[in-house]
Amino acid sequence: MTYRAPVDDIAFTLKQVAGLAPDLEKGRYGDLSDDLVDAILSEAGRFAGEEIAPLNLSGDQEGARWKDGTVTMPAGWADLYHRWREGGWNGLSGPEEFGGQGLPVMINVAANEMWSAASMAFGLGPLLTMGAVEALDKHGSDALKATFLEKLVSGEWTGTMNLTEPQAGSDLAALRTRAERKEDGTYRIFGQKIFITYGEHDITDNIVHLVLARLPDAPAGTRGISLFVVPKFLVKDDGSLGTRNDVFCASIEHKIGIHGSPTCTMIFGDGKGDSGEAGAIGYLLGEENRGLACMFTMMNNARLNVGIEGVGIAEAAYQKAKEYAQERRQGKAAGGAIEGMSAIIEHPDIQRNLLTMKALTSVARTICYACANALDRARSSDGDEARHWQERANLLTPVAKAFSTDVGVEVASIGVQVHGGMGFIEETGAAIFYRDARIAPIYEGTNGIQAIDLMTRKLPQSGGAQVAGYIAELREDVAALRVSNSADLGNAADRLDSAINDLDDATSWLQSALAEGRMNEALAGATPYLRLFGLAAGGAYLARAAVADTGAARRALCRFFAENLVGESAALKARVIEGAESLAAARVALG
Amino acid sequence: MTYRAPVDDIAFTLKQVAGLAPDLEKGRYGDLSDDLVDAILSEAGRFAGEEIAPLNLSGDQEGARWKDGTVTMPAGWADLYHRWREGGWNGLSGPEEFGGQGLPVMINVAANEMWSAASMAFGLGPLLTMGAVEALDKHGSDALKATFLEKLVSGEWTGTMNLTEPQAGSDLAALRTRAERKEDGTYRIFGQKIFITYGEHDITDNIVHLVLARLPDAPAGTRGISLFVVPKFLVKDDGSLGTRNDVFCASIEHKIGIHGSPTCTMIFGDGKGDSGEAGAIGYLLGEENRGLACMFTMMNNARLNVGIEGVGIAEAAYQKAKEYAQERRQGKAAGGAIEGMSAIIEHPDIQRNLLTMKALTSVARTICYACANALDRARSSDGDEARHWQERANLLTPVAKAFSTDVGVEVASIGVQVHGGMGFIEETGAAIFYRDARIAPIYEGTNGIQAIDLMTRKLPQSGGAQVAGYIAELREDVAALRVSNSADLGNAADRLDSAINDLDDATSWLQSALAEGRMNEALAGATPYLRLFGLAAGGAYLARAAVADTGAARRALCRFFAENLVGESAALKARVIEGAESLAAARVALG
Repeated sequence: MTYRAPVDDIAFTLKQVAGLAPDLEKGRYGDLSDDLVDAILSEAGRFAGEEIAPLNLSGDQEGARWKDGTVTMPAGWADLYHRWREGGWNGLSGPEEFGGQGLPVMINVAANEMWSAASMAFGLGPLLTMGAVEALDKHGSDALKATFLEKLVSGEWTGTMNLTEPQAGSDLAALRTRAERKEDGTYRIFGQKIFITYGEHDITDNIVHLVLARLPDAPAGTRGISLFVVPKFLVKDDGSLGTRNDVFCASIEHKIGIHGSPTCTMIFGDGKGDSGEAGAIGYLLGEENRGLACMFTMMNNARLNVGIEGVGIAEAAYQKAKEYAQERRQGKAAGGAIEGMSAIIEHPDIQRNLLTMKALTSVARTICYACANALDRARSSDGDEARHWQERANLLTPVAKAFSTDVGVEVASIGVQVHGGMGFIEETGAAIFYRDARIAPIYEGTNGIQAIDLMTRKLPQSGGAQVAGYIAELREDVAALRVSNSADLGNAADRLDSAINDLDDATSWLQSALAEGRMNEALAGATPYLRLFGLAAGGAYLARAAVADTGAARRALCRFFAENLVGESAALKARVIEGAESLAAARVALG
Repeated sequence: MTYRAPVDDIAFTLKQVAGLAPDLEKGRYGDLSDDLVDAILSEAGRFAGEEIAPLNLSGDQEGARWKDGTVTMPAGWADLYHRWREGGWNGLSGPEEFGGQGLPVMINVAANEMWSAASMAFGLGPLLTMGAVEALDKHGSDALKATFLEKLVSGEWTGTMNLTEPQAGSDLAALRTRAERKEDGTYRIFGQKIFITYGEHDITDNIVHLVLARLPDAPAGTRGISLFVVPKFLVKDDGSLGTRNDVFCASIEHKIGIHGSPTCTMIFGDGKGDSGEAGAIGYLLGEENRGLACMFTMMNNARLNVGIEGVGIAEAAYQKAKEYAQERRQGKAAGGAIEGMSAIIEHPDIQRNLLTMKALTSVARTICYACANALDRARSSDGDEARHWQERANLLTPVAKAFSTDVGVEVASIGVQVHGGMGFIEETGAAIFYRDARIAPIYEGTNGIQAIDLMTRKLPQSGGAQVAGYIAELREDVAALRVSNSADLGNAADRLDSAINDLDDATSWLQSALAEGRMNEALAGATPYLRLFGLAAGGAYLARAAVADTGAARRALCRFFAENLVGESAALKARVIEGAESLAAARVALG
């Protein structure tokens, strides 16, 4: 089968759970109508399922191939990409001034879920371009915007983020790529970057690299990093392409997954450009030494979009496993009325696996969409309201990224398991999700870094008021479930409340630990805390869904989650509060 | 680095935790001495680390290759195999009558852990041979034994298990491969088998297939299955090889991992053998229509050995991640005294990851070794004692298989994560564990099947007395920890007791559900129950280790496990007891 985008579920979640419906009602996004949202989602779903998904496995098997500095993409991908961008998908929430459609982030995030589900390796390139658009739009000079933005918004050119160096991964303070000022106001960039997604490929005429580098007189550490725009081909005044810049792809990586996405080592300033002079020509983006702030503009959005990759992969893995479980017959289910073997979906253990996949996917989706909604509300308001929603987006971004990508790995692994031996065979098509999913908890800031970010930078927002207000909202959702006249959901509401209490307690404990300077204790609990946050929030969102849609399926899923999956919260809270001391004590066990 | 077998830890666990020390003291295994055990483990560790491990990655990259019915193994593997078998490793616990060393299963399982850690794909072939030896030794006629056993024990020939067919995986009742009786007492086998590990290769002169097939007049279902010995080359009376039998490898699979291990589709009876006559010549093993019982003889042992693969992979992934964390420098740990970047092992979040890996690995190891010990005690005793220990082995086998292989996947995934971006790159050497580990929860009975086996067949043993006695023993271990005068372990003992109470409650609930015929409810909780069993048992074993070795490391690891990992037990118990109803209700959410 090919992936079939769950358009109805996506639309329902956007509107009824993540806040789009009241936003549309209030006209928050201009004349964007409910019908238009549906039409966009439906067409995105069609494109993802019918056009992208069929090229996912072949793209994986073929992979991106490097030779003499050039990268050949899998067969059919260039054509697919151009059909995709001609559909306007690249500029869905891009700036209208430069040809974008200026739609809410929510719509773009929902579409990104579908591209990722259909082919994570394919969808990855555009994600980087979207990040570059955002950084240029926000921090670029008019001249830079005029030169690059329209082509990036349309997808005629793609963009990249060049951060990582061998010695500088999570710790960007350590980066060494250097930039020299030239009298004409341009810069020359020298250095090596690794893990550059879509750093080189043959599907567009030009590639626009955003590159972090250090000026000679820059202060040490992260306050001495500047951001530069370094195009593969220089752009002439008339917009046409000029000479080849001194930036080349030295190799691509052999990876567990996303084989169709070239992961490049980029060399800047080796003197191999057309000019023959060493140094890649770069243009300053934003201010000198303030590059990290610019980069974080795009990283935040990128983090949400990596989270949604987790959701997409999980959804695709779930669909694949469910279809197999409906077709594959083995054994006879207890109480099964049918003669002969039962479809394995009739076995309770398989049902448990599939429901776990579905519930975790749904929960991750709501968190990502809620985060996108906060971004949209922040952008479409000002003053206190804008600050509130920006803080909300800040709070949810690390959860959206880390929780959802962990879910992606977890769900993809269960998906392989549901297939039995067939799951381990590449041609079956379940394996690719297990392999592709594994990068998402790592890139754009490892999930460990996300957890630390959540705890150290997001909990203290507004003196703790932001997270407190958020937790209060979660309680309201469960309260609404409780009064929704559903006897079968009473116990579920208790369980969800319990999880929220656990989150509340763990939050308070971490805030005290931070306030009292017990940093290592707090750090020890960061990852279990983020998981707890995701479970408690997700449970409340499923409750909201069950209240909004009284159909049996959503109510039953909420109950399943509450009675089967959210119970982990108590142990997670204990790990946060009590785990640190035993963790520190056990350092000795690591030798 | 290459894998370094944790020989001291293995020896300690075997002797002090899993019961080998008291067994040796009582002379249960003849003149096997403590020194000899140490010498064997130490030499196995050397061979695994110095000889096998260096060929693991190259074997993965090269993979087994199929062409025209033959399979070429990775470079160096044939030579490696012969050095390995000449070391006597293949026959470690093989029957002495046929050249084996007759050592306890425990020693062999410990050695298998090391082979699996060094290269799961390499170690897999011998596991199958060992299973074939066991089945032949137990059920073979004298003539069959005389023909095949010595060569299989020495490893001059390898063995396979031919169970799975496209329509018959977990459900062997559905198998269709057929056997015809011949007047000379032999049989002719016709059919197709899939997923046959080491079904074809070029490292030994002959391969001995054990094949499940159906006689024409056999009853339907599992009571109509017979087991046959089908050699690749027929064996002449003088023991030399004769004509090629009518069994061929039609293809091998492209898999997520274990690329060096050929996974073969075998065709029996296509008329391509040297005789030109269709039908692979087979010899009945055991009685007609009783083949499944024979096969289960080897499957039980194979299940334990698959469990130990999970332990080996987890140990190797842990070592790799720990080494990387000691070398890689990023950021500055809070409170770190050193200038510049800290080794990432100094960051609490990385410590949590590594300790989780180590604790889960240790727990899985003790469960597997305890299972092996039960097998050894059953074999070296009789009457009630033998029955008791056989029941114990039966009880622990599904836990050893499923819990340990889940741990293998979990730990390998964390291992990739600890490496950050480098973990996703194949050449780093962390990815292979993530890929290889994924098959172990599937083959030799999926982990879902193991959980159902534990619940439906193992809990009822001796009317529930076996599991009750086992739980009582777990309590004793925690009680001993409590009185071991260690203030810092008081809370840990509480947590471990809690987990055992959870196991006890869940066990009682399942027994009632089974007794009352609430089969679907019981089945729904099988997988969470098995996980709960593993955690509670593992915690008690770590307590036993902490009592036996008062060194700081084992005590701290026990505490870490008790205060960070065993807490999941409460939620697991709730899933067993309360989860079934919501699971059944949520069937509707699967569409």
